[in-house]
Amino acid sequence: MDLLEGLATTRAIRRYADTPVTDEELATVLWSATRAPSGSNRQPFRFVVLRNGPRAAAARAALGRAAARMWAGKQASDGYATGSGADPDSPKARMARTMQEYADRFAEAPVIVLACLIRYRDANPYEGSSVYPACQNLLLAAHALGLGGVLTQIQLMVEPELREILAIPEGVALHATITLGRPAGHHGPVRRRPVDELVYQDGWEQPAPWAVDPPGTRWTAAGPPGPAPELRSPPR
Amino acid sequence: MDLLEGLATTRAIRRYADTPVTDEELATVLWSATRAPSGSNRQPFRFVVLRNGPRAAAARAALGRAAARMWAGKQASDGYATGSGADPDSPKARMARTMQEYADRFAEAPVIVLACLIRYRDANPYEGSSVYPACQNLLLAAHALGLGGVLTQIQLMVEPELREILAIPEGVALHATITLGRPAGHHGPVRRRPVDELVYQDGWEQPAPWAVDPPGTRWTAAGPPGPAPELRSPPR
Repeated sequence: MDLLEGLATTRAIRRYADTPVTDEELATVLWSATRAPSGSNRQPFRFVVLRNGPRAAAARAALGRAAARMWAGKQASDGYATGSGADPDSPKARMARTMQEYADRFAEAPVIVLACLIRYRDANPYEGSSVYPACQNLLLAAHALGLGGVLTQIQLMVEPELREILAIPEGVALHATITLGRPAGHHGPVRRRPVDELVYQDGWEQPAPWAVDPPGTRWTAAGPPGPAPELRSPPR
Repeated sequence: MDLLEGLATTRAIRRYADTPVTDEELATVLWSATRAPSGSNRQPFRFVVLRNGPRAAAARAALGRAAARMWAGKQASDGYATGSGADPDSPKARMARTMQEYADRFAEAPVIVLACLIRYRDANPYEGSSVYPACQNLLLAAHALGLGGVLTQIQLMVEPELREILAIPEGVALHATITLGRPAGHHGPVRRRPVDELVYQDGWEQPAPWAVDPPGTRWTAAGPPGPAPELRSPPR
């Protein structure tokens, strides 16, 4: 797959076939992750891969409980069941079904990867620059192999439990939980806001005339469906 | 370029030819950045591109002063001039010359991109998951086009000044400064730690037997050259 095409077509994959991910595929995916840049090339990122091991089972169970709690909370706060969500054919209702299934089956994802960061400074909002590029490489490499996944923050809901199960020391931050597998069923295209809403030139909200979406780009509004989607500006 | 090859060969590029980056190239690079995932697809990332505009000139000057200060501090704290750094042919001394030139010419980089995040929650160490994947896409897309760049945190040293020059509101965080251009001169391969030091299975520091470097992988120790590099474990 072409690099630019890969960047344009990698999307969140939340439904997985039962076919396992092979050792060779995982080797490529994780190795590609570790090629990412980090501050001063310190490479403070570490990946704990959960498959079928004894500790993985306990960690998966904890993460599964967290996913159920997360989705219950999000469903309520983001109004998935109200407004257009009441129509089972609406995009909102479809997304709600996907999320429900994702949460229900979180613990059984073919592979779960915990992306960790060995902190060399006090925690701060910018430290992710040394771990999330590696997570993105991981997801892109998965796509290159016909796999797919999604980055979540589920680990934060059960962090003490995970630390104990997996013997993750203090001083190591848990920055992401990535589920991985072979995509099952149909997945729509990548949808983002029109690029001119996201890219500026020479100052905040100043237009960059060259920032135009290529023909065929599919748009979306930003964020989860809210209780009042009619208040959002439609895609242009 | 192939996606997996792109992930494996994208490295920090700090020396740029004078040839300008075209509008078309920038359009592709920034559009690719915005295809990245973010929490709930909120797309809170915004990119302020600095080229030749009037505000860009002032912002570049501020960033250039910050780069000079950053390198002066780093040079001292990381011991670039001591130990093997005293030998002008050592990798450490070569890196020091590259960094000196990078700092000296920071303000003149063909393109500078400020990666911003519209905060929808209080600042926290995990918020970068909605902006750094986009930064990595940006660098990968640049590589696909024969351009190159590097992600820095220089903006944090002159944040109030930049906010004023570029009218960046409170509530928007400045997460990265990325310089971009056409690579000048020779650039070595990507060097990372052996993958089995970075990837575990079923628990912290538990080996993942399938995590092996492909033949031809070039290794490095982690982090900047320190005052006592002989204390570091050599690459295996």
